[in-house]
Amino acid sequence: MPPYDDLPPAPGRTNEITSPANPRVKWLTGLRRRQARDDEGVTVVDGYDEIRLALEAGVELRALYYSPSLVADRSRLGLVDALSARGVEVVRLGSSAFTRASYRESPDGWLAVVPNPARELSALALSERPLLLIAASIEKPGNLGAMLRTAEAAGLDAVIAAAAVTDWGNPNVIRASKGTVFAVPVAAATTHETIGWLRANGLTIVAASPEAATVVSDVDLTGGVAVVVGAEHEGLSSAWRVAADHAVKIPMVGRVNSLNVATSAAVVLYEAARQRALTGAGGRVTG
Amino acid sequence: MPPYDDLPPAPGRTNEITSPANPRVKWLTGLRRRQARDDEGVTVVDGYDEIRLALEAGVELRALYYSPSLVADRSRLGLVDALSARGVEVVRLGSSAFTRASYRESPDGWLAVVPNPARELSALALSERPLLLIAASIEKPGNLGAMLRTAEAAGLDAVIAAAAVTDWGNPNVIRASKGTVFAVPVAAATTHETIGWLRANGLTIVAASPEAATVVSDVDLTGGVAVVVGAEHEGLSSAWRVAADHAVKIPMVGRVNSLNVATSAAVVLYEAARQRALTGAGGRVTG
Repeated sequence: MPPYDDLPPAPGRTNEITSPANPRVKWLTGLRRRQARDDEGVTVVDGYDEIRLALEAGVELRALYYSPSLVADRSRLGLVDALSARGVEVVRLGSSAFTRASYRESPDGWLAVVPNPARELSALALSERPLLLIAASIEKPGNLGAMLRTAEAAGLDAVIAAAAVTDWGNPNVIRASKGTVFAVPVAAATTHETIGWLRANGLTIVAASPEAATVVSDVDLTGGVAVVVGAEHEGLSSAWRVAADHAVKIPMVGRVNSLNVATSAAVVLYEAARQRALTGAGGRVTG
Repeated sequence: MPPYDDLPPAPGRTNEITSPANPRVKWLTGLRRRQARDDEGVTVVDGYDEIRLALEAGVELRALYYSPSLVADRSRLGLVDALSARGVEVVRLGSSAFTRASYRESPDGWLAVVPNPARELSALALSERPLLLIAASIEKPGNLGAMLRTAEAAGLDAVIAAAAVTDWGNPNVIRASKGTVFAVPVAAATTHETIGWLRANGLTIVAASPEAATVVSDVDLTGGVAVVVGAEHEGLSSAWRVAADHAVKIPMVGRVNSLNVATSAAVVLYEAARQRALTGAGGRVTG
């Protein structure tokens, strides 16, 4: 997938794009489709705060788009010169062109094109006793974003989307993750590829499931562990249930299995972090 | 606050309300305001699935509103007779009247008026070694809903909204809670009242804060405990920091304190549940 293959020319430093029908604007709106994000190897960060978070996470912006007439806080315009000085392409848009390009209902006048955060499995680097989260067939961007925030806080080696319904470059994932999608290594692969890669790396597969017989705190999570959580409605597929070395549950007394999937992931991952801090196995989370 | 004080008359069993300007429809839309919900002592459950969850939780419906032309799944119409037979007032609306009354973008033709789930502090019943969650000044309905799901799963005695920005009757809280707002005892009070009530009941106040020196798993949570989590942006107020018997943190290695408030609540509450299961102190959560 050659990055940036279809990028139309920019208008030059001092001009601005005013027409919503401009090819650059069309190219930006095209990135709303996952296929276009995959083909171009990039995605869009929409909003000043989100762009700051991406920059703080060390992301190299491919381009910054802004619309001065939409920027209420004029002190933010300093970002234009700061990024220009770094050699980032900066493109000015008129308000109607920007509004067309933006993914938000109330655009704030800032939008950036960045490399798609997803890596190949082979590009993931693992620590001595890794702790990973596998998000299996997760649909909701908000859940993926919440899991990334937990992954960043708990110091995970990586989060892998297996059989992903929603891609890491989805602008709603980026927003819900509060920038952590750029701070935590993320990858995407098929279920089969993921299971093979986990096995090849000697990781213990721990599947979280309300139907499991064992409570999560009764399982040793201090070694190299991949915690797997399943889709919002369907739960884990049979492939994961067969592949799992342990199936663990979170104790629930309510009438329904009411924990949200991102909440379940957090409880299991922090139980792993607690055990690892006790044994000194997982040095990253010690408080 | 006299319940149901301003309720306009219904059209009778066989008629339907067709005009969006009908007083009953106006009364229903008025319940979007918190003040109206407080005054009338009721709130609205919008959507068939949510109504089923409320019924399963034992909620006594004050009235059912439905619009046959909006109901795609005709098997659901059995709910009308089932509730009529129980003596619940059932009101039929035309589609435009219903759409005006509904809180949803795509209404499914079902809406119920139910008693406001919030209780007074004095109406809460506590177990021998209670575990409670205090949601202090929480703003987002989605976070309150997520906390209720965790509270139900973990078998909490109650969730108290202190200095609530958002009320328990907020239709978005009801929806985000997946019906658990009706299954978990909920109350609302001022910060001062809540602290006084916790003290009077001999509860240990455990404040969750990223600035705390002590890791949550290093504190004994097996007695009567109230876990306090603070507002999304501001964190805990000084009143709570002064009142807390323990301040605890969740270990975080990331560059930002990135855990969502509902996620933080889940991690602390499940650490309490783990400790209580070990000691047999909190019999409700044992797996």
